[in-house]
Amino acid sequence: MIFTPLALRGGVVLPNRIVLPAMVTRLSGEDGFVNDDIRVRYTRFAKGGAGLVVLEAMAVHQSKSGPLLRISDDAFVPGLADLAKRCHDAGPGKVFPQIIHFLKISRSGWRQTVDMLSCADLDAIVEAYGAAAERARRCGFDGVELHMAHAYTLSSFLSRLNARRDEYGGSLENRLRLPLRVIERVRKCVGEDFPVGVRFVGDECIRGGYTALDAAPIAVRLAQAGLDYVSLSAGGKFEDARHIDGEPLYPYTGYSGDRCMPSAAYPDGANLPIAEAVTRAVRAAGLATPIVAAGKIGTRELAEQVLARGQGDLIGMARALLADPDIPRKWQSGREDTVVRCVYGNVCKALDENFKRVVCTLWPKSLGAAPDSDDDVAPEWPAAGASLTAEVSGGRVLLRWRAATDNEAVYGYELLRGDAGGILLHYASIRGASLRFEDARVVGGATYRYAIRPYDLAGNRGPLTPAIDVQVPDDFAPGRAPSDGSACVGVRS
Amino acid sequence: MIFTPLALRGGVVLPNRIVLPAMVTRLSGEDGFVNDDIRVRYTRFAKGGAGLVVLEAMAVHQSKSGPLLRISDDAFVPGLADLAKRCHDAGPGKVFPQIIHFLKISRSGWRQTVDMLSCADLDAIVEAYGAAAERARRCGFDGVELHMAHAYTLSSFLSRLNARRDEYGGSLENRLRLPLRVIERVRKCVGEDFPVGVRFVGDECIRGGYTALDAAPIAVRLAQAGLDYVSLSAGGKFEDARHIDGEPLYPYTGYSGDRCMPSAAYPDGANLPIAEAVTRAVRAAGLATPIVAAGKIGTRELAEQVLARGQGDLIGMARALLADPDIPRKWQSGREDTVVRCVYGNVCKALDENFKRVVCTLWPKSLGAAPDSDDDVAPEWPAAGASLTAEVSGGRVLLRWRAATDNEAVYGYELLRGDAGGILLHYASIRGASLRFEDARVVGGATYRYAIRPYDLAGNRGPLTPAIDVQVPDDFAPGRAPSDGSACVGVRS
Repeated sequence: MIFTPLALRGGVVLPNRIVLPAMVTRLSGEDGFVNDDIRVRYTRFAKGGAGLVVLEAMAVHQSKSGPLLRISDDAFVPGLADLAKRCHDAGPGKVFPQIIHFLKISRSGWRQTVDMLSCADLDAIVEAYGAAAERARRCGFDGVELHMAHAYTLSSFLSRLNARRDEYGGSLENRLRLPLRVIERVRKCVGEDFPVGVRFVGDECIRGGYTALDAAPIAVRLAQAGLDYVSLSAGGKFEDARHIDGEPLYPYTGYSGDRCMPSAAYPDGANLPIAEAVTRAVRAAGLATPIVAAGKIGTRELAEQVLARGQGDLIGMARALLADPDIPRKWQSGREDTVVRCVYGNVCKALDENFKRVVCTLWPKSLGAAPDSDDDVAPEWPAAGASLTAEVSGGRVLLRWRAATDNEAVYGYELLRGDAGGILLHYASIRGASLRFEDARVVGGATYRYAIRPYDLAGNRGPLTPAIDVQVPDDFAPGRAPSDGSACVGVRS
Repeated sequence: MIFTPLALRGGVVLPNRIVLPAMVTRLSGEDGFVNDDIRVRYTRFAKGGAGLVVLEAMAVHQSKSGPLLRISDDAFVPGLADLAKRCHDAGPGKVFPQIIHFLKISRSGWRQTVDMLSCADLDAIVEAYGAAAERARRCGFDGVELHMAHAYTLSSFLSRLNARRDEYGGSLENRLRLPLRVIERVRKCVGEDFPVGVRFVGDECIRGGYTALDAAPIAVRLAQAGLDYVSLSAGGKFEDARHIDGEPLYPYTGYSGDRCMPSAAYPDGANLPIAEAVTRAVRAAGLATPIVAAGKIGTRELAEQVLARGQGDLIGMARALLADPDIPRKWQSGREDTVVRCVYGNVCKALDENFKRVVCTLWPKSLGAAPDSDDDVAPEWPAAGASLTAEVSGGRVLLRWRAATDNEAVYGYELLRGDAGGILLHYASIRGASLRFEDARVVGGATYRYAIRPYDLAGNRGPLTPAIDVQVPDDFAPGRAPSDGSACVGVRS
């Protein structure tokens, strides 16, 4: 299923169902032009084989911002056209830019909201989207994605907190009015044979925000307006952002940011119930519009399950592809076991929140990019073995092991965990420099089984160690004397 | 299924699977004694037939607070014993008090956190829970529920944001340590034949909080400690509470409060994916401990589905039973169609947030309580009919109708909505004094079908009007001239 091509309009066929959603990189300058870092990042993604590579959001207008690509003027066309060509040369996937309009924010924490916009402002937004989409086509991109998600202008119109009192706010249809005008204008500017997708949030994840209950009719309405796909995200709003004195308000820093990029604390596929509700509503309305599901989907098994269950038609993977851009190629060639797996530790998210360039913490520090190796020699444990040992203390299991060796370099270690007697599943990825892992997610009275294997730059796995079983003591077993807080250290100092 | 009894320990059998979860009422005084208002509220609930009536949280300690029941001293026993007897006399359900420990808060917004507690404080919490549970047994209650949910002490220990650095914080097992000590102490105080349940949150719904991924092992650990049921809530935390100057910080006022009591903006059964994950984990651990699922479950159909799908073993319904305490009796006697249905408008939640007594907005103002009528004469439309009409404007459908009449009183109107040609489903309940409803959840290009019927104090339904079909115009149909924002009224004044 995941490698079944998907045809959009105009003869554009996605070679597979894997989508790289737009992801902030902070690699560009404030001038908005494509630079070397951007070219390296996206050609690497394209080479990995994703069916659709969506370039990070680029502004349709001239408003000041931090590092951000722009498509707001013909001056940006040559650089973008070159980038499109390089991506096409690098891999089989189609390449769409995501185009964005955002409102003003200031370092005081003030931000412009949709109810401050005049009629002329609305017209300008519509025009800017149309012109930008037309430029996208001229650049040689295969289609364009309209950003209607997170904390940005069109998402704020769709929001249940849209405070406009005219025909652009209040009712669901009014909240849809500007997004629909934009779609109408974009279609007029790009013609009938150019794919136009949209990304919006299936759940705002903020107080008073909308949920899948509104997202379902919104998706139906957007699909009816002739979109070629609907890509779902969640949260990422300004309303619950944490303001740092002297810095502009930044979305993704609140709870809704957690929901946008679910961390290791979240179940895999954390936002799938939303995607399922939306997909069902679109199908019930008789529309075949493909839906992109996203949110901590990192394994082929889960991706195939999403497709099989009809929770979505395309799989968005941002952090997983940042960790290993070659996932599509590896899956397709039956080398799933060489994928370097994202740990969803959200170091990338934290870098972005701190206005730093976004990299993956798993990447070798010496490279500053995902490694690109064709080596096929797997790492090895020392002759005496890995000597995997465990120590239980303070409700934690501390695992230690010996360093493996490799002909190129040991990139990291993959830790598997299972219940006693149960199957071992991927539990964590650990950077090669570390030879220890502390598991704080155990409970007393239970026995856990661990095993570990090393991997190299190409993802080749060394041998899995024999499994060790670790029993966590139960201080509270019935009949046993209570610990009476003997380990209490009292008030914090 | 819903009327299959469930045996807990000590010969305590719940006659059905419907649970009234603990719900704040603000009916008591600050002295903590049971008063007339409390007696009226809970005997009314008991009369309705819920299998388990959990009384609102009562404090195990003397700490100052607003209106709150207390069980922190033997002086409270006579009043509570009388309340237990009255509830037993009124209905077939079992009656448990929920017992709570909370930390200090001040009007400045400051609040005590778990890392400020000394070892002696922890010991005192453990002792206070044990003594309160023993009192609960002495009062003649059928069991006791330990409050480990929302913003209160034991929940804050379970929290992923627990900042203690000793054996009571950090790892999952350490976060469980104080709750487990409390369970152990309570069991010792109440004996082996007295049911003890717990309520905790399956998802904290705050930034950095835990999700079902931690709730599953927490539930397993609590169940292994010998609890008789695990009742799941969500959110309701201090961390995202909105501070009102001069008022103490109050939980439920942030996004996590929305998730705790999902409003009309949420899908029915909004928190069921959490309950399902937890129930599965408890079963996988070989434990039969019943799980209470809750969160916008208001219909028999959904309740039965939860049981059939194994998403829970008991159904918690707070707001639904506030709106109509007789739901259990009505369901059991095949009179589902006389249930007065909660609209999840959360007026009750807003009253609580504003430190006002909690009532249901659907109740007749003249009564100040859920009506209690055995009348069986249904309301009637006037001879000329209800004259249900619709007008579409500004993306809204405005419905109007004529007043019905009844031998007692028209209590309200039940509005049904469906897609054109689709089945009509309950959509809203409207108070009897109103003869209009504005539907802002429609989209252009779609046709909606509406019908309405009146109901009286006993919930008897009058005739359903003939359905009317309403088409919402599509300003954005392909080929149609755009509206060009002609209805824009510009910047807010």
